[in-house]
Amino acid sequence: MKEDPEPFRAPRGLAGVSVADTRISKSGADGSLIYRGYPISEIADNAGYEETAYLILRGRLPTKSELREFSGNLTAKSLVEEKVFATMRDLGRDAHPIDVIRTAVSSLGSIDREASLEDQEASLESKMSVIAANCLRVPKGEAPRKPKASLRFSDNLLQMLTSREATEYERWVFERVLILYMEHDMNASSFTVRVVASTLADPSAAAAAGLASLKGPLHGGANEAAMQMFLEIGDPAKASKFLANSFKEGKKVMGFGHRVYKEFDPRARLCKEYLGEILKRRGGDDKLYRLCNALEREMWEKKRIPPNLDYYAAPTFYELGIEVPLYTPIFAASRIFGWMAHYNEQISDNKLIRPDSVYIGPTGLKYRKIEDR
Amino acid sequence: MKEDPEPFRAPRGLAGVSVADTRISKSGADGSLIYRGYPISEIADNAGYEETAYLILRGRLPTKSELREFSGNLTAKSLVEEKVFATMRDLGRDAHPIDVIRTAVSSLGSIDREASLEDQEASLESKMSVIAANCLRVPKGEAPRKPKASLRFSDNLLQMLTSREATEYERWVFERVLILYMEHDMNASSFTVRVVASTLADPSAAAAAGLASLKGPLHGGANEAAMQMFLEIGDPAKASKFLANSFKEGKKVMGFGHRVYKEFDPRARLCKEYLGEILKRRGGDDKLYRLCNALEREMWEKKRIPPNLDYYAAPTFYELGIEVPLYTPIFAASRIFGWMAHYNEQISDNKLIRPDSVYIGPTGLKYRKIEDR
Repeated sequence: MKEDPEPFRAPRGLAGVSVADTRISKSGADGSLIYRGYPISEIADNAGYEETAYLILRGRLPTKSELREFSGNLTAKSLVEEKVFATMRDLGRDAHPIDVIRTAVSSLGSIDREASLEDQEASLESKMSVIAANCLRVPKGEAPRKPKASLRFSDNLLQMLTSREATEYERWVFERVLILYMEHDMNASSFTVRVVASTLADPSAAAAAGLASLKGPLHGGANEAAMQMFLEIGDPAKASKFLANSFKEGKKVMGFGHRVYKEFDPRARLCKEYLGEILKRRGGDDKLYRLCNALEREMWEKKRIPPNLDYYAAPTFYELGIEVPLYTPIFAASRIFGWMAHYNEQISDNKLIRPDSVYIGPTGLKYRKIEDR
Repeated sequence: MKEDPEPFRAPRGLAGVSVADTRISKSGADGSLIYRGYPISEIADNAGYEETAYLILRGRLPTKSELREFSGNLTAKSLVEEKVFATMRDLGRDAHPIDVIRTAVSSLGSIDREASLEDQEASLESKMSVIAANCLRVPKGEAPRKPKASLRFSDNLLQMLTSREATEYERWVFERVLILYMEHDMNASSFTVRVVASTLADPSAAAAAGLASLKGPLHGGANEAAMQMFLEIGDPAKASKFLANSFKEGKKVMGFGHRVYKEFDPRARLCKEYLGEILKRRGGDDKLYRLCNALEREMWEKKRIPPNLDYYAAPTFYELGIEVPLYTPIFAASRIFGWMAHYNEQISDNKLIRPDSVYIGPTGLKYRKIEDR
């Protein structure tokens, strides 16, 4: 008779348990973040979006011709099928954008299944951006906005998201924020993608599962919630009182804290600079920046908790004229490149992720007829 | 400066790592399977489908009035919205049934979000069965088959799946196979559901992620693949030669082996009995049973690997007149109750499942301009 081996009881939430050796990225408690060997500031200061996507996916920066081919392939594959828009329309105007984008991405799986894995991924990466930009419009019955072949990836996403004409600096900043959102080691959605990838499911199925995990308030939606909070406070002078009230009522203050970063989130620091610079160049009202800054200082003094990327990405998107319910879809549209890097790394040396559990319930019960219960 | 704690490097695939203490079910290497304290044979021999679903979800067998309320609620919530059928139709006749069911379930999330958690789950459980039964018909443009209020859950599913009139014994067997598929401790899809549940995403999002993991050939689709294999072999006399060829060519023989069961899968044993009895009662041709049996014996003699549930569920579904591409959707329609039990257990004592990774790539690289690469 075979005996069951004694399982190792992992800490709750798999905290501190490494599930993979990775070459993709690493965040550190000291506020460091590495993308494929490069400190995040090296990339954010210098690289373009497609260049960074190539780096995250392929493990090194592209040459000129590699970048041209990669970008061209993304553009060529960005045509979202009418039946995907039809699916988004079916969901109706009250649908939550994250439900819309997950359902639309799920529907892609049945379309691209004959293509090579690389082409399936490029198609998914490219279409996600169009789907994200249209996940509020299309369910309302409005015509989808489409990418222009002449524009770069991040410029295309921005022009589909707003009707507003952005300055060159604003477009540069939007590209930076997308780069900062692209990848973040073994977070909950990337782990979800790896679990599904380990069954050898296709990229769309894995991405749909990643999007499912973004529906949960413990993982997705934080940038939107932070923006709602800023709008509620409204005035820098009210930050202190708002915080005191939140502490008294035991309410979570949105956009603060991170399982890894304890001193500062390097992405938040970069994004804060960009937001400040946008408002400085624009002149006029910088109230939103002052509010964020006041709340950040107060929170650090009282609790020693630093803001995370969502905290500064939200007001940046707001100042770029993007509607709040689109913030998490934008995050997803950028993170898809990180998810696909994890997908590829998982299947390149795969073993089905099938953990164990410890049964602590009763045993040996006898069925009794329903009359006798 | 904070230091990163050294992570524990888990075995690949999280093999032998317990991620939860559970009271739902337990499979053992000795061929045992417990549902909430009851050996599987106690349940399969005696209990009804709704009764077992109640047991798996709530932790104990229901009283008469509890069962009446539970079943009534499932029936009341089985009306799938026309827009969900529209989404299934949008996917088109060539869509893979698992893509159809995942996309349809994903779309449910935007519909039921105002209901209580319990009602969201009942709605999902009930509608999954209707969606599964229609995931071939509706994308082809055929009218959806709908459940009848007068029928029990498993009879309803069977009448939606086939046009054939089943005998009372056949209906009893179909209900048994659903019961055997309902729950199976920490398998890959249930773990996926728990990972997504840990973000506090809603039940539809978690189920969509579970379905995403079923798309992968390492987890879902095994019953369909086994049936294709039986149809290919065709004759019991050819089993031996087929196996010899498979070994020679290094091809996987479908429906054999399991990470837990090493001597026998108790569900396969039960299902084999049912299949034999169906054919015996029917009289006439029992070739499919003899083929399965011959292949099983040969495989045990040569490799000491027992068949799993998929191996005997497939020919049973076949003899009940169900089309092969519906086998995995049927599995999912039953497993949803197990998934929801895991969902509920996860959120009842939740911590976000956010593991760690070990970075083994380079560090400290400097960006170089594209011209200099």
